Amino acid sequence: MRTFKIIRPDETICPALTDKINNLTKPKGSLGTLEELALKIGQIQQTLSPTLQHPQNIIFAADHGIVEEGVSLSPKEITWQQISNFLHGGAGVNFLCRQHGFILKIVDAGVDYELPYDKGIIDMKVRKGTRNYLHEAAMTEEEMNLCLERGAEVVRQCHKEGSNILSFGEMGIGNTSSSSMWMTCFTGIPLEQCVGAGSGLNNAGIRHKYEVLKQSLDNYQGDGSPCNIIRYFGGLEMVMAVGAMLQAAELGIIILVDGFIMTNCILAAGKLYPEVLSYAIFGHCGDESGHKLLLDNMGVKPLLNLGLRLGEGTGAICAYPIVVSAVNMINEMDNFAHASITKYF
Amino acid sequence: MRTFKIIRPDETICPALTDKINNLTKPKGSLGTLEELALKIGQIQQTLSPTLQHPQNIIFAADHGIVEEGVSLSPKEITWQQISNFLHGGAGVNFLCRQHGFILKIVDAGVDYELPYDKGIIDMKVRKGTRNYLHEAAMTEEEMNLCLERGAEVVRQCHKEGSNILSFGEMGIGNTSSSSMWMTCFTGIPLEQCVGAGSGLNNAGIRHKYEVLKQSLDNYQGDGSPCNIIRYFGGLEMVMAVGAMLQAAELGIIILVDGFIMTNCILAAGKLYPEVLSYAIFGHCGDESGHKLLLDNMGVKPLLNLGLRLGEGTGAICAYPIVVSAVNMINEMDNFAHASITKYF
Repeated sequence: MRTFKIIRPDETICPALTDKINNLTKPKGSLGTLEELALKIGQIQQTLSPTLQHPQNIIFAADHGIVEEGVSLSPKEITWQQISNFLHGGAGVNFLCRQHGFILKIVDAGVDYELPYDKGIIDMKVRKGTRNYLHEAAMTEEEMNLCLERGAEVVRQCHKEGSNILSFGEMGIGNTSSSSMWMTCFTGIPLEQCVGAGSGLNNAGIRHKYEVLKQSLDNYQGDGSPCNIIRYFGGLEMVMAVGAMLQAAELGIIILVDGFIMTNCILAAGKLYPEVLSYAIFGHCGDESGHKLLLDNMGVKPLLNLGLRLGEGTGAICAYPIVVSAVNMINEMDNFAHASITKYF
Repeated sequence: MRTFKIIRPDETICPALTDKINNLTKPKGSLGTLEELALKIGQIQQTLSPTLQHPQNIIFAADHGIVEEGVSLSPKEITWQQISNFLHGGAGVNFLCRQHGFILKIVDAGVDYELPYDKGIIDMKVRKGTRNYLHEAAMTEEEMNLCLERGAEVVRQCHKEGSNILSFGEMGIGNTSSSSMWMTCFTGIPLEQCVGAGSGLNNAGIRHKYEVLKQSLDNYQGDGSPCNIIRYFGGLEMVMAVGAMLQAAELGIIILVDGFIMTNCILAAGKLYPEVLSYAIFGHCGDESGHKLLLDNMGVKPLLNLGLRLGEGTGAICAYPIVVSAVNMINEMDNFAHASITKYF
């Protein structure tokens, strides 16, 4: 399996960062999360004057064999239809990218459809959808490695283009199911608490989805290692996102984490390389059942809590201006001494 | 007392707004709070294509007689010193205004200092700080009316300039004390739960602040009417903000509500004219003890929860891009029929 060299950012710079932040013209700590973010980003970038450059949102898209078991309200064709919508600029992710100056990249990790690659979609297709993990592993080891490598390749290209912050999103009917499987396997939280409505299942639908996933878990005879869980239950787009996140961390790029599915991807990435979490900023807590539970389990607090459950990177991009505010704060605010203000704490 | 003519926005348009939102290319409800905001703003503006124009942040500043009782960690001089900092662009509010395209207006409602009005501060000074409400009413009826009228005047000017969304902030050492008094009087929540650390009191400091405020409450012999409570315990900047909010609602302007103090101002405004709340969007839940309690008591959910407690309008401005996202969503997203996507709910 491909390896990554991810180091935890050096903490030596932290006292100087904290000192700078504490001397800005405000009561100590009064900009709350902005202060924590500025410290984290300064540490990642090893500077007292961090910057955010060329933000991009990468959507990995793929189909899922498990969908044939009726685990999703949405038909499989939505995956490619929404990609077409992304290309035309009419989806949720598009207006957010325009608003916050994100470049949008769409990566075909494994969509079960002949997509028009001349229209800007990045062709990284590993296969046309996963196998059905009710009966067999979703992908082979070779396919998993291809996903990791191709996700990493997309990020290396972004790095060449000058990006130092990336958000990752997904499009893949059926991928909340894969996410629930990863979540239960990696956290030990009972499957029932990891399963939710996805794109809008009712209670009976959620029950059926749970039963299919429970059976899949019962049928599983792998070795329980992170790699095995990732490839057995994973989506191709999810494993590609894992590779992308690991490559981002290796390159010192900030990872903006989106919703339930991407949180499971950073969870899985962290099972392979725990240091990857030092580079992650959690954008939002979504409405998908299990997302809050997972974030709590990971001990992280996301920036937003707006009841989003769309995916595509939308929650991460919505949170981006707060990250910008943190960087602007440390770069633009005056300090007490220079502003001739009585330091009042 | 000056009267305002505030009407609840007509609900007739709501079914058409909901229909438009539900046909955008996303699972129904999957953009959560953005969908609720789009509905609210569309209703306020009575259109299916709302816009946000010329956002401004108005800071009302004043001093407080109660400060001589030692209720604040910060010395009184911080009020005018921070105004100077606002003018130089080095404060918290400045970088946020620049980031989100807000014009910043600074209004002297009652600062106990000779400010340089040639530098852009709007002179609406009613008196040099309030009286000490431990012993007497903070302001006379005439002064209260002047505050309301002058706050309204500032907003009428913004309206002439083309603003249809305004955030309000404050600068006034001692104003968390006034806010706690309004909160306990208007909500019935025991004073002890309404008192917090302000700019950074320790536990002993908070205890002393509580005792001073408790004594003030015991000494109070007014008639308990909203007007009387507002003028007895109010800050000049707070009453001016109340007048500003009421005028904004009368003109159909969206009110972005900032932290603990501004939440108490909209609470007070709502005691005079309940309909004002139809125009309010709550920006954030701050870290000042009592703020969450107050928001819960009012039955409102703010957009952000970032542990801010700086005031100045910072929390409201941080939340602004989310409001923009809601408006962009309803204006820019494609619908299922036009995008040729199978409607999947």
